[in-house]
Amino acid sequence: MRILVLNGPNLNLLGTREPAVYGSLSLQELMDELAATHAKVSIDHFQSNHEGELIDRIQHAAGRYAGIVLNAGGYTHTSVAIRDAVSAIGVPVVEVHISNVFAREDFRHVSLIGAVCAGSISGFGLLSYKLAVEAIIGLSRKAG
Amino acid sequence: MRILVLNGPNLNLLGTREPAVYGSLSLQELMDELAATHAKVSIDHFQSNHEGELIDRIQHAAGRYAGIVLNAGGYTHTSVAIRDAVSAIGVPVVEVHISNVFAREDFRHVSLIGAVCAGSISGFGLLSYKLAVEAIIGLSRKAG
Amino acid sequence: MRILVLNGPNLNLLGTREPAVYGSLSLQELMDELAATHAKVSIDHFQSNHEGELIDRIQHAAGRYAGIVLNAGGYTHTSVAIRDAVSAIGVPVVEVHISNVFAREDFRHVSLIGAVCAGSISGFGLLSYKLAVEAIIGLSRKAG
Amino acid sequence: MRILVLNGPNLNLLGTREPAVYGSLSLQELMDELAATHAKVSIDHFQSNHEGELIDRIQHAAGRYAGIVLNAGGYTHTSVAIRDAVSAIGVPVVEVHISNVFAREDFRHVSLIGAVCAGSISGFGLLSYKLAVEAIIGLSRKAG
Amino acid sequence: MRILVLNGPNLNLLGTREPAVYGSLSLQELMDELAATHAKVSIDHFQSNHEGELIDRIQHAAGRYAGIVLNAGGYTHTSVAIRDAVSAIGVPVVEVHISNVFAREDFRHVSLIGAVCAGSISGFGLLSYKLAVEAIIGLSRKAG
Amino acid sequence: MRILVLNGPNLNLLGTREPAVYGSLSLQELMDELAATHAKVSIDHFQSNHEGELIDRIQHAAGRYAGIVLNAGGYTHTSVAIRDAVSAIGVPVVEVHISNVFAREDFRHVSLIGAVCAGSISGFGLLSYKLAVEAIIGLSRKAG
Amino acid sequence: MRILVLNGPNLNLLGTREPAVYGSLSLQELMDELAATHAKVSIDHFQSNHEGELIDRIQHAAGRYAGIVLNAGGYTHTSVAIRDAVSAIGVPVVEVHISNVFAREDFRHVSLIGAVCAGSISGFGLLSYKLAVEAIIGLSRKAG
Amino acid sequence: MRILVLNGPNLNLLGTREPAVYGSLSLQELMDELAATHAKVSIDHFQSNHEGELIDRIQHAAGRYAGIVLNAGGYTHTSVAIRDAVSAIGVPVVEVHISNVFAREDFRHVSLIGAVCAGSISGFGLLSYKLAVEAIIGLSRKAG
Amino acid sequence: MRILVLNGPNLNLLGTREPAVYGSLSLQELMDELAATHAKVSIDHFQSNHEGELIDRIQHAAGRYAGIVLNAGGYTHTSVAIRDAVSAIGVPVVEVHISNVFAREDFRHVSLIGAVCAGSISGFGLLSYKLAVEAIIGLSRKAG
Amino acid sequence: MRILVLNGPNLNLLGTREPAVYGSLSLQELMDELAATHAKVSIDHFQSNHEGELIDRIQHAAGRYAGIVLNAGGYTHTSVAIRDAVSAIGVPVVEVHISNVFAREDFRHVSLIGAVCAGSISGFGLLSYKLAVEAIIGLSRKAG
Amino acid sequence: MRILVLNGPNLNLLGTREPAVYGSLSLQELMDELAATHAKVSIDHFQSNHEGELIDRIQHAAGRYAGIVLNAGGYTHTSVAIRDAVSAIGVPVVEVHISNVFAREDFRHVSLIGAVCAGSISGFGLLSYKLAVEAIIGLSRKAG
Amino acid sequence: MRILVLNGPNLNLLGTREPAVYGSLSLQELMDELAATHAKVSIDHFQSNHEGELIDRIQHAAGRYAGIVLNAGGYTHTSVAIRDAVSAIGVPVVEVHISNVFAREDFRHVSLIGAVCAGSISGFGLLSYKLAVEAIIGLSRKAG
Repeated sequence: MRILVLNGPNLNLLGTREPAVYGSLSLQELMDELAATHAKVSIDHFQSNHEGELIDRIQHAAGRYAGIVLNAGGYTHTSVAIRDAVSAIGVPVVEVHISNVFAREDFRHVSLIGAVCAGSISGFGLLSYKLAVEAIIGLSRKAG
Repeated sequence: MRILVLNGPNLNLLGTREPAVYGSLSLQELMDELAATHAKVSIDHFQSNHEGELIDRIQHAAGRYAGIVLNAGGYTHTSVAIRDAVSAIGVPVVEVHISNVFAREDFRHVSLIGAVCAGSISGFGLLSYKLAVEAIIGLSRKAG
Repeated sequence: MRILVLNGPNLNLLGTREPAVYGSLSLQELMDELAATHAKVSIDHFQSNHEGELIDRIQHAAGRYAGIVLNAGGYTHTSVAIRDAVSAIGVPVVEVHISNVFAREDFRHVSLIGAVCAGSISGFGLLSYKLAVEAIIGLSRKAG
Repeated sequence: MRILVLNGPNLNLLGTREPAVYGSLSLQELMDELAATHAKVSIDHFQSNHEGELIDRIQHAAGRYAGIVLNAGGYTHTSVAIRDAVSAIGVPVVEVHISNVFAREDFRHVSLIGAVCAGSISGFGLLSYKLAVEAIIGLSRKAG
Repeated sequence: MRILVLNGPNLNLLGTREPAVYGSLSLQELMDELAATHAKVSIDHFQSNHEGELIDRIQHAAGRYAGIVLNAGGYTHTSVAIRDAVSAIGVPVVEVHISNVFAREDFRHVSLIGAVCAGSISGFGLLSYKLAVEAIIGLSRKAG
Repeated sequence: MRILVLNGPNLNLLGTREPAVYGSLSLQELMDELAATHAKVSIDHFQSNHEGELIDRIQHAAGRYAGIVLNAGGYTHTSVAIRDAVSAIGVPVVEVHISNVFAREDFRHVSLIGAVCAGSISGFGLLSYKLAVEAIIGLSRKAG
Repeated sequence: MRILVLNGPNLNLLGTREPAVYGSLSLQELMDELAATHAKVSIDHFQSNHEGELIDRIQHAAGRYAGIVLNAGGYTHTSVAIRDAVSAIGVPVVEVHISNVFAREDFRHVSLIGAVCAGSISGFGLLSYKLAVEAIIGLSRKAG
Repeated sequence: MRILVLNGPNLNLLGTREPAVYGSLSLQELMDELAATHAKVSIDHFQSNHEGELIDRIQHAAGRYAGIVLNAGGYTHTSVAIRDAVSAIGVPVVEVHISNVFAREDFRHVSLIGAVCAGSISGFGLLSYKLAVEAIIGLSRKAG
Repeated sequence: MRILVLNGPNLNLLGTREPAVYGSLSLQELMDELAATHAKVSIDHFQSNHEGELIDRIQHAAGRYAGIVLNAGGYTHTSVAIRDAVSAIGVPVVEVHISNVFAREDFRHVSLIGAVCAGSISGFGLLSYKLAVEAIIGLSRKAG
Repeated sequence: MRILVLNGPNLNLLGTREPAVYGSLSLQELMDELAATHAKVSIDHFQSNHEGELIDRIQHAAGRYAGIVLNAGGYTHTSVAIRDAVSAIGVPVVEVHISNVFAREDFRHVSLIGAVCAGSISGFGLLSYKLAVEAIIGLSRKAG
Repeated sequence: MRILVLNGPNLNLLGTREPAVYGSLSLQELMDELAATHAKVSIDHFQSNHEGELIDRIQHAAGRYAGIVLNAGGYTHTSVAIRDAVSAIGVPVVEVHISNVFAREDFRHVSLIGAVCAGSISGFGLLSYKLAVEAIIGLSRKAG
Repeated sequence: MRILVLNGPNLNLLGTREPAVYGSLSLQELMDELAATHAKVSIDHFQSNHEGELIDRIQHAAGRYAGIVLNAGGYTHTSVAIRDAVSAIGVPVVEVHISNVFAREDFRHVSLIGAVCAGSISGFGLLSYKLAVEAIIGLSRKAG
């Protein structure tokens, strides 16, 4: 089983940005730890600050992955185009957020993407990603 | 480790209501399966259609549980009082929803409770509860 | 044929509250008169100021009543939980109001409950209840 | 006792439009059945797609009818002018709708007319009209 | 193939109103030119300032025309009743506007009618009508 | 100098509707008194409950009248079509209201028509009409 | 009969500000012309840029004037305090505006003051003041 | 003179919740001190997390108490039913809040209850209750 | 202990304005009575219709008074500048209103000033001022 | 005559996404068919999921094309930057949509781009593109 | 070259209010430093808490100053009258704020004044004023 | 001292777009002149129409520049992702705009970016950039 983890804008700054909040792990270390946790699944990871590249990758995932773990960062709240890509492909997408977006600024409370995802997990830091991978495993068992 | 699972209004109808959507398990069977999944944790379960009883239980959990898994049902969107109870106690609360609330009516997109929870998980059916229990385990390891 | 009449918060004050507006009949007398009007149907009546108790009764009506006449009082405008209970059971529910809610304050113009009821009748005082009982009789003839 | 039944725009299409929803009776047949149900009252019926003609008829009803059963169709949500006509005459007006307007598009949830009517009945198909006629009979007994 | 072109309020003033913007052709000349462009289709034209008359004509078109080209003028933004007429008949309706309504006042940005039409064309002057006739021809080929 | 006075829906009820508020003069008597006040101007009067007829008359006034005194009644707040008619003709239009619309319901505070009129006068009863006629005389002197 | 004309902020700039729009008369010349028009009434005039001074004058007018012509300028849209002063005294106040405020920016469409005035006149330039003086004469005849 | 002090959801947590903000007194100690302050009045106290129980008590107070001091906690902002109970009884109710609700989250700025109370006092901690009791004494002197 | 009582616009009209509502005491008599009630505190009083003068006095109070009782009248709802003055000085300010502002027009429900005051008291007439003075005494004891 | 057809995000999925709705033609086949329809015009086509690349192409079209047919996909509703590019160049742009955007989610009803285009065509599938090419031909004849 | 620096309400408190944020310089010292920075320009300074006095000064500046540096303080967000004064005179006005108003309360995000100023500078403390003076020098060079 | 000037979408069109408004200088010439003005600072310049590339550059600036001058063009109003990048790095960012955005369309009044910048400067054309560079010099002196 292959799973794609997609991280959007500014998530490449993990580890150097506010380590008290986000921990001192870089994005690469975090992804390595994620891969180590789930021995039976193969995890590909891609990060980009570009909205268009994220759309390219989501489209490309059709027929190649059992599911996508998507942290769209700031695009979560503004991108109709990513939403359309998510609903166009047949692959289940799980929305994740490191922090609890509902406890932040008002414009972060609206998710254009959540409505077309299989589900959402937010507020648990790295744990959010681990739970999302388990959610995809669970979903594919149910579908299988 | 003891965890409290709190289910709000109408969740006692599980199994008889729209089984195509929610599955044919009753709430009791679902809770039994949840308990069986996590052998090392002791799970208490309580369901009520009464807003006040849910508040009583949340208050009562202080100092007794490592965390609360809370599916507040319809009160999620209207209860400032449950929100105040959640933020008053020192116990971490994880919000869960069986369905993807972002894909339903507009008035279900606003969660008064989410902002004061440790995190939120929605859209994965029974799996939402299992992931929430794991989230509490993960949170208490980090705090421990 | 059995019909359940459910009255919500503050309706127990009928007869003593603003008799010029609501008449001098108590809720009990009003329900007695309603029962007398419809000889062929058996009418059960329950009043509560508690949101949770109303939900309990709505759930309990499944398979027991041909229909529910529901005056949810102030909960009409705020209760997602009662709405969920109404849409979960298979029993037709008719929303009634004694006064014309559209001619009162703005926050009374929004009914969270109306959208999931079979129909709504408002503004006719006691007559609202009588018409609602006839409506349920008519609906069950059509379904029968 | 004479009662005026006023039907607004597009209600002349009854019977040919979506018969699965509205039944196969034409508006004329529906009005005939309504007349037959209430032997003691004399029912006049008028339908128009023109806002101005409906206003003319409402004004003309003053002193001639015991009440008006008004289904203003699409004008329900947009016509301040019909509202003014209803509140200008001394005749009680009962608002009816065939379908449950609260379960349809948002712009159908606002009734400009309801606030100046004696009461509202919606969602019961033909039965809505029958109950409205009974409501007017009841209102005139109370006033008589 | 017969097509009905319906023009709403104030479109009878074409040619005398702001000729620099709308050209110096009268509505009649414009309709003549439209008829001349499409030799194979028979085009009927009707203009009215009355909301009710437009509804009458839309209803009357059922079974008589392959499609309607509708410029509802100022009623575009306020008429639920015309919307209901369009969705009640089986004839495809194409919404046209001479000017680009999105570049004008805010209250012209909302079209109550567009959602129930087959499609919309705006901003091309007379050309809007010609393209709309071609659109109806194309739609009926696809359906034929 | 000729001036057109246009009265919209329900103004034909003057004299019989709430005489304590509007006085006991009928619309005809009121228009007679208005004509008598201004000996040097010729005043034509037309009343209709039909939006389309008001538009017809406004269009017809071009080149025939020095100005229009327009009390659009309930259409003041809902008619984009009358607004378009007013702005299409070259004749100055003065908006009048018998009562002070700003002191009534919220939906009467928005005038779709006022923005394209030469000016507005409201709240003075019959005097509103007299002042409006003087305003048109003053405007045409300035333009002459 | 004595009438007070009150002009608010920036109206002292008349004559030098945008003469193409407001004419080349200064405020003093304009008030002189106003006084000359109405030989039988005595007109006092006061202008201030200070909200508090306008309130002082409105209060002071009680028992001294038959009416006030008030152009509150920019305070029209923001001053609850002037509104309270107008409604506290027994003197009728007529709101005037030189330009058509409904054809300008959105924040000028809301008048906090209009609701407590006897009436409003806007859009006629100097003529607005003349008509307002006539309105007060008419009102005091009616009351006399 | 008897006064009822009603405390709503989560106020039973006083003394253990954020003592730096709310002081270290428990609700019981606080009520004892309140009783001690006012020797001449008899104060009954009741706390509940249940919306329905608060309504029961408000209704029950009619004819038994000179006034109610009501801190409805989180229900302040969401309960139409409590509002209806307050306005149904003849007893004056004074709204109190320990903290300054206007300086907290937006959803706490709207009080559904305040509009039907005799008055409101907020922001003074325990002193809010003392002032409220004095307010009721003052009100009953005025009424007496 | 010295306390400053500041009254804003139109409060100088007390006694002559609507005596049935506000009583027949003038502002001066009311302030005299207030001074007499609290023998141990020295009360200075100042009233102005000018926003700027109220700000001057608030600023001037720093270091001179133990607290300010502020009835900002109509400026309560519109003045950011008074708000800033209140939060800039170290003196506790208690907001008072004679009537219950929440039961009046919508634009009176928003208090720009309340959020930066120590507390608010409204709806008790003269008693509001007396309670406010007691509140300041209580606050200074706590701080002392 | 050269025309540029620009397709935005996710339109490269045509043919594989929901063929029942969008047909089984790929974007390339659709563009080939479009080119074949209009023998006399030369059509260049470009698709991208990247907002910046679409802006680059729009800028680059100045002086090179007679017009642009633009289907901006999800960027239609969110991109101020594409809007600025469209209004900066001298080339006429025609907005097209395959589906009727007015009949879909609310956030698709707002077009940031439409206001600066020459016109808009939506709802006719491939036919939308053909009509848009004809519109550009018509516009350039008028300008030529 | 002469420049007027206008400071609005509460800015006279600089130096004593929150020195950690605003520095320990008084307004006078700050203005002295500002004058010293720009040797070639003559700077006049005026501060007032009164809205009317600020308007007087803005009007008086016409023909006397090359530009105005305006920190309207709390009036920034509420004063239509100051806005009108700014747009009435021919002198360029530069809006300044010491703090970043966009990072503060919501009601500080709306500037009624900014739209009619030549430009705005906020967030740099004293530097805001210096930059504003330079901006006026730059503007007058461009105009000269 | 090194400063990065970042220009967003469509700013590469400067000099050819509306030269009457923006001047005839190209972006390159404008940047050259900016560099010439500030001899002591080294200015790097980068322009892109791509949101992602702007984010890349903002991130890359950390530790390399004393400050960023950012004109985000159309992304100013829609990009949460650029906002996050600005707040993630430790470099002060000054927002600039050539025109006065507050005097343009409504959707340009909201800046998602301004709240996390050190300050904003708009409306001075090229001068905006020069002032921004000075602002950064001033900020770094203060910090130094």
